[in-house]
Amino acid sequence: MEKRDMIYEGKAKKVYTTDREDLVVVSYKDDATAFNGLKKGTILGKGAVNNRMTNLLMKKLMAKGIPTHFVEELSETDTVVKKVAIVPLEVIVRNIAAGSLSKRLGLPEGTPMKETVIEYCYKDDALGDPMVNEYHIAAMGWATREEVVTIARYALQVNDFLRAYLKDLHVDLVDFKLEFGRLPDGTIVLADEISPDTCRFWDSRTGEKLDKDRFRRDLGGVEDAYREMMRRLLGA
Amino acid sequence: MEKRDMIYEGKAKKVYTTDREDLVVVSYKDDATAFNGLKKGTILGKGAVNNRMTNLLMKKLMAKGIPTHFVEELSETDTVVKKVAIVPLEVIVRNIAAGSLSKRLGLPEGTPMKETVIEYCYKDDALGDPMVNEYHIAAMGWATREEVVTIARYALQVNDFLRAYLKDLHVDLVDFKLEFGRLPDGTIVLADEISPDTCRFWDSRTGEKLDKDRFRRDLGGVEDAYREMMRRLLGA
Repeated sequence: MEKRDMIYEGKAKKVYTTDREDLVVVSYKDDATAFNGLKKGTILGKGAVNNRMTNLLMKKLMAKGIPTHFVEELSETDTVVKKVAIVPLEVIVRNIAAGSLSKRLGLPEGTPMKETVIEYCYKDDALGDPMVNEYHIAAMGWATREEVVTIARYALQVNDFLRAYLKDLHVDLVDFKLEFGRLPDGTIVLADEISPDTCRFWDSRTGEKLDKDRFRRDLGGVEDAYREMMRRLLGA
Repeated sequence: MEKRDMIYEGKAKKVYTTDREDLVVVSYKDDATAFNGLKKGTILGKGAVNNRMTNLLMKKLMAKGIPTHFVEELSETDTVVKKVAIVPLEVIVRNIAAGSLSKRLGLPEGTPMKETVIEYCYKDDALGDPMVNEYHIAAMGWATREEVVTIARYALQVNDFLRAYLKDLHVDLVDFKLEFGRLPDGTIVLADEISPDTCRFWDSRTGEKLDKDRFRRDLGGVEDAYREMMRRLLGA
């Protein structure tokens, strides 16, 4: 697989063309941002952790029957994925109240939700990624009603798998964000990443945060948290 | 029907006990508030317009098979209604972008929605009535999934009826807010009011606003707008 021209640079990843029309290479960066880009920094080794963790989990999810964009890990930070048209939604799955949900509903962080909550946010930095619902999504044409049903089903399946898998590693899955894409034939597949950048992981014995909140909230030990999550997942 | 003790005073209405355990009297006030109570004022004659308009529309909706809390109009401003446990949700139905939807999605006011949008807001002044979705509602126990399905069906039926009815009166139904309650046996019924306080009405020929936005946005002619809506509805 030949990595060619950079076609996109986001906050945490770059995307390159390849010698195949249907494949691209994603390259994970150490750059970190928070609060819609207002806070910027670097987390050494983050790119490698997020790349390897995402690929490890995507492979496990594919084995469970959930389609993803994953094709092949190229290096510590680079991975070949299928080219998709991204559905412009952040799909947030919540098991325990934290972050914006705590603020929105006045729930103390750490309150378990009686049922798993899914939220959709429209991916638009200028609008601040506003929360939207199934009606907005259909009216704006961001996804069809059938696609939203598929996306919600996959999101809950990912949650069921990840929660159980992380529990054995003494990690509580508080919440996480997924993104989905469409293949040229319209198939919905899981895309983007599953990492401490996009999940809240709490040590189930100590309550310690093992995710990007350490960066967002200046808690220190940011690199250690990313490495610790990787260590638990690889059992190394 | 005897009106007894005041048991509740809200921003726009008072509620009184009656000589019957299952009935209360709602008394509509001329007081107007906006922006979660930050703006206060008086709209002369508003109580009478909102009471009469609500009752007229509730009766028409009941004739269409939509259950409501309406029992009997007592006077210009007072109405007997069934006592209900209010479902703590504002159910917002939108045909044309305006107000908070325009801000949230960056849509110019007046943009027609390609499909009718329903939004739910959790009724909590301290939290600023945050927008929530079906998952939050189920997880927080504010309503069951079955109740939300019923509420959404009624909300769309109310929209279908009101839109057609107002069209003949040269009024565009931009959006409106409904509230629902539970009777002691659990039946979901339409409650609260349907008035220029809770709907956006635009004159379909001139685009003139005939609703509370005249008060919210200091457009003048507030009383005239309420009276004009009443005149059109009564055909007088």
